[in-house]
Amino acid sequence: MAKDKAPRRPRAETPKGFRDYFGADVTERKQMLDTIAQVYEAHGFDPLETSAVETVEALGKYLPDVDRPNEGVFAWQEDEGDWLALRYDLTAPLARVAAQFRNDLPSPYRRYAMGPVWRNEKPGPGRFRQFYQCDADTVGAPSVAADAEICGMLSDALEAVGIPRGDYIVRVNNRKVLNGVMQVAGVFDPANPDHMHTERGIVLRAIDKFDKFGEPGVRALIGKGRLDESGDFTPGAGLSDEQADIVMGFMSAKRDTGAATAARLRDLVGGSVLGMEGVSELETIAELLDGQGYGSDRIVIDPSVVRGLGYYTGPVFEAELTFEILDEKGRKRQFGSVSGGGRYDDLVKRFTGQAVPATGVSIGVDRLLAALRAKGRIGGTVQGPVVVTVMDRDRMGDYLAMASELRRAGIRAEVYLGNPKNFGNQLKYADKRESPVAIIQGGDEAARGVVQIKDLVLGAKIAAQASLEEWKSQPAQVEVARTDMVATVRAMLGQNVTGA
Amino acid sequence: MAKDKAPRRPRAETPKGFRDYFGADVTERKQMLDTIAQVYEAHGFDPLETSAVETVEALGKYLPDVDRPNEGVFAWQEDEGDWLALRYDLTAPLARVAAQFRNDLPSPYRRYAMGPVWRNEKPGPGRFRQFYQCDADTVGAPSVAADAEICGMLSDALEAVGIPRGDYIVRVNNRKVLNGVMQVAGVFDPANPDHMHTERGIVLRAIDKFDKFGEPGVRALIGKGRLDESGDFTPGAGLSDEQADIVMGFMSAKRDTGAATAARLRDLVGGSVLGMEGVSELETIAELLDGQGYGSDRIVIDPSVVRGLGYYTGPVFEAELTFEILDEKGRKRQFGSVSGGGRYDDLVKRFTGQAVPATGVSIGVDRLLAALRAKGRIGGTVQGPVVVTVMDRDRMGDYLAMASELRRAGIRAEVYLGNPKNFGNQLKYADKRESPVAIIQGGDEAARGVVQIKDLVLGAKIAAQASLEEWKSQPAQVEVARTDMVATVRAMLGQNVTGA
Repeated sequence: MAKDKAPRRPRAETPKGFRDYFGADVTERKQMLDTIAQVYEAHGFDPLETSAVETVEALGKYLPDVDRPNEGVFAWQEDEGDWLALRYDLTAPLARVAAQFRNDLPSPYRRYAMGPVWRNEKPGPGRFRQFYQCDADTVGAPSVAADAEICGMLSDALEAVGIPRGDYIVRVNNRKVLNGVMQVAGVFDPANPDHMHTERGIVLRAIDKFDKFGEPGVRALIGKGRLDESGDFTPGAGLSDEQADIVMGFMSAKRDTGAATAARLRDLVGGSVLGMEGVSELETIAELLDGQGYGSDRIVIDPSVVRGLGYYTGPVFEAELTFEILDEKGRKRQFGSVSGGGRYDDLVKRFTGQAVPATGVSIGVDRLLAALRAKGRIGGTVQGPVVVTVMDRDRMGDYLAMASELRRAGIRAEVYLGNPKNFGNQLKYADKRESPVAIIQGGDEAARGVVQIKDLVLGAKIAAQASLEEWKSQPAQVEVARTDMVATVRAMLGQNVTGA
Repeated sequence: MAKDKAPRRPRAETPKGFRDYFGADVTERKQMLDTIAQVYEAHGFDPLETSAVETVEALGKYLPDVDRPNEGVFAWQEDEGDWLALRYDLTAPLARVAAQFRNDLPSPYRRYAMGPVWRNEKPGPGRFRQFYQCDADTVGAPSVAADAEICGMLSDALEAVGIPRGDYIVRVNNRKVLNGVMQVAGVFDPANPDHMHTERGIVLRAIDKFDKFGEPGVRALIGKGRLDESGDFTPGAGLSDEQADIVMGFMSAKRDTGAATAARLRDLVGGSVLGMEGVSELETIAELLDGQGYGSDRIVIDPSVVRGLGYYTGPVFEAELTFEILDEKGRKRQFGSVSGGGRYDDLVKRFTGQAVPATGVSIGVDRLLAALRAKGRIGGTVQGPVVVTVMDRDRMGDYLAMASELRRAGIRAEVYLGNPKNFGNQLKYADKRESPVAIIQGGDEAARGVVQIKDLVLGAKIAAQASLEEWKSQPAQVEVARTDMVATVRAMLGQNVTGA
């Protein structure tokens, strides 16, 4: 055959940075999302599902001085000229919906949303360009009771999916306190909020990396800059040592009780009205949560939480898992953050000109799943279907009827539909499917009105461990009357489940 | 303020052809998908979730002679050159996965997938560019038992979501029979399958429009062409009257029993080996389904089903809802098709060069939901949360505690978090939320250790219907001890549910 005539075949490849999810990976995530949705619903939150696609204009990612929207999103231009993009989070679409339907939605509007978001970033190991988020937000509630509600609900959600109390902590802080501290340090002027905006951004991001770089690293970043091990230099915010001391004092202001922490913060923000307001808000949140029984074993005030995002304007919160796991190099490390959020009062204003107070939380579903797997709470044995093998391809109808009967009894079942010629392949298939039981009926068995039922779980156990005597006394395959098939399979599955 | 200095605000608009789903629209679809997933799982199908993004190359939509992929998909180019696109169905990603993971997946591979797909089409009323599909496919099973299984499972799924037997019919046909008929009519030559390929495409699409255009329209389209009411002319396949007679004979070959239909088809395809093979396959499918109790009240052989897609190679099937609904103009019409599928043996071959037999079905989730709504089976009353009103903003902690207590008793509840100043607004809010009950506790009630519980459902009923006497005898608001709050609310909700 002439080689240049053969058409080039397309590559069968998941695009770079994307992945496929099979079987239990899909169902376990779904179960987690369902459980979180139940907690959100119980708190009066209603589901909202926006489309994956938004106008770039609505997303707010359009840079006016370049033709192409910026690099963080997947974007394309419509024939008639609009730029469209895949959403990069669930908050920007909520802001758009809150503005678009402001006359129809209840106010306050409590909504939850769950689904994939897309980031046009360089993919890396474990970093994907499509991942799930699971958000709850309250739009139109100025009171910090809304923030307290979100924190309590986050605690409930974590426990509902299987993180026991003591294995997580929700930390609460307030951006106003930090801004108050910056005011005291001379890097924030409430009368001129744009002044030193860039420097404050650097400070925020630096503090957010405390876990990663430690105090010296953060000090370098808010000061002259930081040289990393590879020799790369990151320019700093340029704060003086005195200014840096004030900021670092804020970071370590946490005390044993919320009241003591608040007192310490009041000292730090002394001169700033904004800072004092922030401390009061933190105290109110702590009180409201205490009143509902959320003690400091679940939710604490912690000034080291800043959350990098620039759009937060008041309380910010973060849920951290406190247990240790082994990382890819076998070293113990804290699992870390699985969720975060806070108050943002300006997102809707972009559209309408009117400030709308809003607060919300986002749970990193994939990280939370990874945590539960690391703790062995999910990802155990997946039970495959009962496989009805095919001994005689002319009696396919009989085999399909067996599978039907099993299903009617609530048992997951299927007929082997590959080439039935090689019986060994059928058992290998059942093994790959993690089938607990295989049904076998050749012509002889059919004539006698019986079926063979092979207990594959027990069979594997015997093959791995048993002596010849045990093998004989505990046969992994039994012959029963065809009419007893369903009852026998049910009994075997019951045994396997309880004896596992 | 200088007008040219005000930055233009972004429009808060869902992009054209996309929509947002709120509340019950989200939960009802989710419930339907969950139910269908249970049926698929019971049949041994495993979930697969691919990402929304595929390479254009893998999707098979790339046109080699233009720079830009064709218009049916949303596509964009990566910086390093690859074209990416949103998936337009769930079958193309399955074909890619089946090729990419062919050494790891069980064979046959039964998988189901549910999720949105995207079409870059001109939006119209009720036509959206993002919609849900819900597919089940078996890859690697050559036997028509796999097709029979899919048909039976489709019937089970429709009944599970609430379409009763008699309100739907699954119709089965076989593309081989149609090709046999075309062979008899002289428009198909198995030895030279490319010959008259275009003409056969026109015939397929014409037959698919039988419901819409009737026999004369279809005859015109497979003959010289069709002039519609607006004066537009659609060129036909150019078949002679004799050839058209043969094809139309096939369309009307359905008889009262499967056996009679098969006999009639055997006559029509007389000379064609391929056609005879197709008839035998149909007979086998009918037998296998009969054996499992799927009678002709659920699944029938119907030669008028062709399914437009060119890639089908054997059995094709379609589920139709048989009841009438009123269309937007108030005219009665059949609801029509909600699902379709068939056997396609060449999709994986694109990637690997090896033909892999596959068969599957896709359920149009949004159409099925619309059908259930049209029948009043879903979309009834949505119960909102109990709303705890705020009479005294300094006692927010007490109100939050009430909501917590209600939730612990399994009752959906929230505190009003808007500005509490105007009490009327709080009740209007509860009304908008479709709350069944509102809790009220002012300072006086707090001092006496009681709460007021307002039955909003009963209140609305009384306001609409009751006389003054009834009003007095059936108060919609009761005062109870604070400790009796949960029990009283629970009793009210129980009454509302059973008395609705």
